Amino acid sequence: MARQFACAGAHTVVETKQGKLRGYRLDDIYAFHGIKYADAKRFQMPTPIQPYEGIRDALAYGYVCPMLNQDVPQMEIMVPHRYWPMDENCQYLNIWTPRLSADAKKPVMVWLHGGGFSSGSSIEHVAYEGDRLSGYGDVVVVTLNHRLNILGYLDLSSFGEKYANSANVGNADIVMALKWIRDNIAAFGGDPDNVTLFGQSGGGMKVFTLMNTPEADGLFHKGIIQSGVLDGFLNGPTDGTAIGRALLKELGLAENEAEKLETIPYAVLAAAYNKAAPEVERAGHYIGCVPAANDWYRGDPREVGFTEHAKTIPVMVGSVFGEFDFSPAIPGRKTLSKETVLEILEKKYKSHTPDLVSRFREAYPGRPLIDLLSVDPFFRIAGRDFIEKSVRERKAPTYSYLFNLDFPLEDGKPAWHCSEIPFIFHNTERVAICNIPGVSDRMEERLCGAWVSFARWGNPGAACLPYWPACEPGREYTMIFDRECEVRLNHDAALMETLKETKPRLPFLSAAEGEEEEGFFLH
Amino acid sequence: MARQFACAGAHTVVETKQGKLRGYRLDDIYAFHGIKYADAKRFQMPTPIQPYEGIRDALAYGYVCPMLNQDVPQMEIMVPHRYWPMDENCQYLNIWTPRLSADAKKPVMVWLHGGGFSSGSSIEHVAYEGDRLSGYGDVVVVTLNHRLNILGYLDLSSFGEKYANSANVGNADIVMALKWIRDNIAAFGGDPDNVTLFGQSGGGMKVFTLMNTPEADGLFHKGIIQSGVLDGFLNGPTDGTAIGRALLKELGLAENEAEKLETIPYAVLAAAYNKAAPEVERAGHYIGCVPAANDWYRGDPREVGFTEHAKTIPVMVGSVFGEFDFSPAIPGRKTLSKETVLEILEKKYKSHTPDLVSRFREAYPGRPLIDLLSVDPFFRIAGRDFIEKSVRERKAPTYSYLFNLDFPLEDGKPAWHCSEIPFIFHNTERVAICNIPGVSDRMEERLCGAWVSFARWGNPGAACLPYWPACEPGREYTMIFDRECEVRLNHDAALMETLKETKPRLPFLSAAEGEEEEGFFLH
Repeated sequence: MARQFACAGAHTVVETKQGKLRGYRLDDIYAFHGIKYADAKRFQMPTPIQPYEGIRDALAYGYVCPMLNQDVPQMEIMVPHRYWPMDENCQYLNIWTPRLSADAKKPVMVWLHGGGFSSGSSIEHVAYEGDRLSGYGDVVVVTLNHRLNILGYLDLSSFGEKYANSANVGNADIVMALKWIRDNIAAFGGDPDNVTLFGQSGGGMKVFTLMNTPEADGLFHKGIIQSGVLDGFLNGPTDGTAIGRALLKELGLAENEAEKLETIPYAVLAAAYNKAAPEVERAGHYIGCVPAANDWYRGDPREVGFTEHAKTIPVMVGSVFGEFDFSPAIPGRKTLSKETVLEILEKKYKSHTPDLVSRFREAYPGRPLIDLLSVDPFFRIAGRDFIEKSVRERKAPTYSYLFNLDFPLEDGKPAWHCSEIPFIFHNTERVAICNIPGVSDRMEERLCGAWVSFARWGNPGAACLPYWPACEPGREYTMIFDRECEVRLNHDAALMETLKETKPRLPFLSAAEGEEEEGFFLH
Repeated sequence: MARQFACAGAHTVVETKQGKLRGYRLDDIYAFHGIKYADAKRFQMPTPIQPYEGIRDALAYGYVCPMLNQDVPQMEIMVPHRYWPMDENCQYLNIWTPRLSADAKKPVMVWLHGGGFSSGSSIEHVAYEGDRLSGYGDVVVVTLNHRLNILGYLDLSSFGEKYANSANVGNADIVMALKWIRDNIAAFGGDPDNVTLFGQSGGGMKVFTLMNTPEADGLFHKGIIQSGVLDGFLNGPTDGTAIGRALLKELGLAENEAEKLETIPYAVLAAAYNKAAPEVERAGHYIGCVPAANDWYRGDPREVGFTEHAKTIPVMVGSVFGEFDFSPAIPGRKTLSKETVLEILEKKYKSHTPDLVSRFREAYPGRPLIDLLSVDPFFRIAGRDFIEKSVRERKAPTYSYLFNLDFPLEDGKPAWHCSEIPFIFHNTERVAICNIPGVSDRMEERLCGAWVSFARWGNPGAACLPYWPACEPGREYTMIFDRECEVRLNHDAALMETLKETKPRLPFLSAAEGEEEEGFFLH
């Protein structure tokens, strides 16, 4: 059935501090796409945009940040993507809202996209479209692009004062967006004093790195970290002298010519970086593409502790059952013989198999044993560690969840990295594989409802869910989102302890396996 | 409400002549994305793909052809786009079908995308998604990518025998897709003896250039040309010696080194072409990016006449009211004073204004006079000429239509280039601006219904439409698609005669206005 579209000066123009913006309305939701929130010179801190006269159209998504490697269309059925023209001039945000009045003061939910700190965009996934979350939750949804990879995260501080924080300018772009939101979101019906950051994968990492970034203090009030805590990603050395030198050398430039890096075409810069970085990495040096601790960013809270302000932020932390298991679904998965399953498991887990089997059965009594192949150790082990430190060191509450759905691929495939996102955004209708009659509508209500409740009150409790307590030291209460939802206490603690002993290795942190897989796994 | 998704070997795998393909099903419609239908070396004729073992996933759209210039995100509210990773290896097609059985024999509708012969893709517009047309019309829908711009249409025949048809290899890709369809579409429930080509803008031109291409004879049986007939686009010189020489020179290559053009990175080739082409064009030479008449392609039928086979193809030809008027909507458009309107019109039409005003009122009695500013002369004048030649020279019927809707932008904006496409594909729900309560659902039924009827029977008559006769010499019966539909006889003949006298100039054929506008206008 046709909805009601409108795009007219009288009804869909908003006045911001910088000038007027024209959006559009579709039924009850107003949309503003591609709002420029900052400008920046390459490797340098962003600056606010200048005031302007007249009305600017906010009717087309803005440029996304260029990537180091071309994307390869694949696995679209598991994670449908959108691509978009790329340009370094990428500081754009998008807004969806049910009201355009300064007294509406609705909760503001700011989405930080995944793709590590190297790729992705505010519209990369089909599921990132914000209209339905805004409508279902009666909230203002903001999504944003910012600088990525070497444009956003490459420490060149030893090559000049103006690059003092080049290691973190990608996050600094986000802080500028949050300042724009503080100054302007009321005009879009949002409450600048109730801003929740939520993000998945790299987007989750952005949430907690910004918690430990004093310049962002007070600009957001809650955080949701979806599949965003990972060991071996944000720690390690952070001095960019080695990668900077290698890059200059690769480009035939002298060390005092670092300024030339500012004007070289990005494609040339990226090609030189891709060539120079592996050797620098093998030598044990930092190669950029992640935030680096300095005066501006205090470092991974699991390493350096939480800042005093970070201790005041309610957080929700979780991950999904299968995460990086993107292998093809197994036909006949639920009817394999016990012998076959054990044979397969022993190939992977060797002598740990008997312990893992018994602990898996305790943790996931409803799952076929073959799913032990898929269970994620990476985000769960690191996430449990984050939660434990969080409840011990911080005053504000910490909530835990696990997304445990099986999807209808072959005879069922456990949830993979990114698969919860359509439910959070109330977008299962737009993602073919999320269409499970009798299941997905209800799960969508529960997940979206919990996220909205958390954004509204700092507590994910929702009428459609069982009672969900915050975690306590040594007591992880985890909401298991599945066909039936339940809260369980330390449900997989023993399983994760044993999995830790198997020393699982992140595929994309293994240098031998190359760059391509990084893009693949962290999308 | 959640639909039913399935993707499993038992239910969504089809066996083609080359091997097995896995698609997915959403409720009643099966989808297969990114099926490779041919391979090709640069500038050379395509070859069939080789048979393979096992099952290939057809679950992600394939690469699209690289473009000469980066796209700029704009006017998304009028024509929402999708972008996708690019690669020369771009011979991919997509299928949507309600049945996977060889005896279903449903009509096959093959969409040829627009973007001149230089840009666009099978998924460029959000509206190109084929599932709903397939479901509503009970037809098999195919969309496809093929080589474009200098990769698909650059005559290098004077530089080597293997480039004999490099001027038309883009169209030759389409012919290979049609051969794949002939060989395989029955397994997807389609009737290989009832294939309709439909395309808009450049896609419409592809329809009639393929009508005059003997290698395509028998591979399709009907044609729909939407906003695809234009003067000054397909005629003129077709010898590529000058542009080939200029390109080689720009790249520092000798004339006997043309083979090196095959391996130079596309970005380098495109940059050299963009630099070299304007001067060659100013000197009056062909610069490629359109099919060139030769033994393989017999030339624009308006210039050289129709082939005997082309005379057997029922065609439908039409355009939209406003076409290239993409200027902002005029607030208060319906309430401007007569004096103001005449003042504006006189600026554009000078001494022709009084004649145009009276003829516009006859042609469009329901429209405000200011819409004379927007009325399209380009496709209508050339389209009327095509129709007249078609009915005089051909046996098969020719139908005429005009899409005349106003959209809810400010106080209304007449239909622009591409704006009918969401209605044809039954995709108005996916295109925000098409949501007009009480109007768009009914119009969608009528347009989509007429297209499906034409594909099924070669006659666009549908139960929801008034009687729609084929055109006759001197008698153009045009179905006006609007809030109310009606058939009118030569309704704008006088208006177009007068507009012709004003010598309207295509913005993108004016060299002074540059390349960028070409991409803009022909998207």
